[in-house]
Amino acid sequence: VILYDASESGNCYKVRLLCALLGLRLERRAVSVTDRSDRAAILGHLNPALRVPVLILADGRPLAESNAILLFLAEGTPFLPEDRYQRALVAQWLFFEQYQHEPNIAVARFWRHHPDQAGTARERQTRVAAGHAALDAMEAWLTTHRYLVAERHTVADIALYAYTHVAGEGGFDLGRYPAVTAWLDRVRGHDGHIPIDA
Amino acid sequence: VILYDASESGNCYKVRLLCALLGLRLERRAVSVTDRSDRAAILGHLNPALRVPVLILADGRPLAESNAILLFLAEGTPFLPEDRYQRALVAQWLFFEQYQHEPNIAVARFWRHHPDQAGTARERQTRVAAGHAALDAMEAWLTTHRYLVAERHTVADIALYAYTHVAGEGGFDLGRYPAVTAWLDRVRGHDGHIPIDA
Repeated sequence: VILYDASESGNCYKVRLLCALLGLRLERRAVSVTDRSDRAAILGHLNPALRVPVLILADGRPLAESNAILLFLAEGTPFLPEDRYQRALVAQWLFFEQYQHEPNIAVARFWRHHPDQAGTARERQTRVAAGHAALDAMEAWLTTHRYLVAERHTVADIALYAYTHVAGEGGFDLGRYPAVTAWLDRVRGHDGHIPIDA
Repeated sequence: VILYDASESGNCYKVRLLCALLGLRLERRAVSVTDRSDRAAILGHLNPALRVPVLILADGRPLAESNAILLFLAEGTPFLPEDRYQRALVAQWLFFEQYQHEPNIAVARFWRHHPDQAGTARERQTRVAAGHAALDAMEAWLTTHRYLVAERHTVADIALYAYTHVAGEGGFDLGRYPAVTAWLDRVRGHDGHIPIDA
């Protein structure tokens, strides 16, 4: 199994983390997140959206979108509930992550790491406010839940962990979110957990 | 089954369209998309992200995120493939929709319908360019495929149809996308199809 990968990308880290927890080996192929000029040549036939991660299955078929890859790999494992409603709640958090969390928290972090590609001050302000709203939603939920779904570690936690645990790099103050902070500790305490720079 | 709904929202329309195709009856409860002051009171206990649609199952349990609702309702029907890889490709397009398509095409449309809530000219320019990139990705794929996944009508098509067919209202010229236009005609030609204003 091959992963088209970028080491600093939380989206790619999600896949690396789940594979580590499942004991699956990945062959990583690095793709740049700053120079995108070769994206069409490398990824054009694998993912029409030209984003990483892209997973190449053993039979050569490609699969893109980090959260679709998580759902695919987790099927039949403890990281995806069997129950239909609980699986739907996992999907609910995965879509929340890609719509309200990643575009704000990951982008604010990317802009800090790569100031030459950053948006305007107003654009940053908009992303930071929306990122705080996403963290508020997580904090409200995690105040009364140990994990996002089914009170156990699922791919919903893996997906949200990826950019939440590095939110400080985007200028977010996690000290304001005690329930989120305690949940981050629970997630990273699981056997087989690896850091983003592993 | 109750749907917290907004008539002009493509995200809500996705759920209404799938239910029409499946012959499921919905009781619709209207939520405003412009005055959001009552969101916490109406949706706070149903969806921490405070977005519509939210589906309330017959037993009272809530489910949010339009594409999570589609996956839930489509399970075991012809609108979601049985095959694990094909299901993963459906999820891939659903995440593409929420990350690269909806935030650009739906938001550009919303800003045109509600100029008092619109972003700046530069923000509009960014969304329009990214929306065209999303339509380019669809055009490339649909040039060689009749439907997004498995050559048949699935929830991937329903999700992408919702905002693509009204992209003109956001200022996008669908005349530049002949494969997308032909696919829109195929999707709306299915028995049980309903329009967004039904």
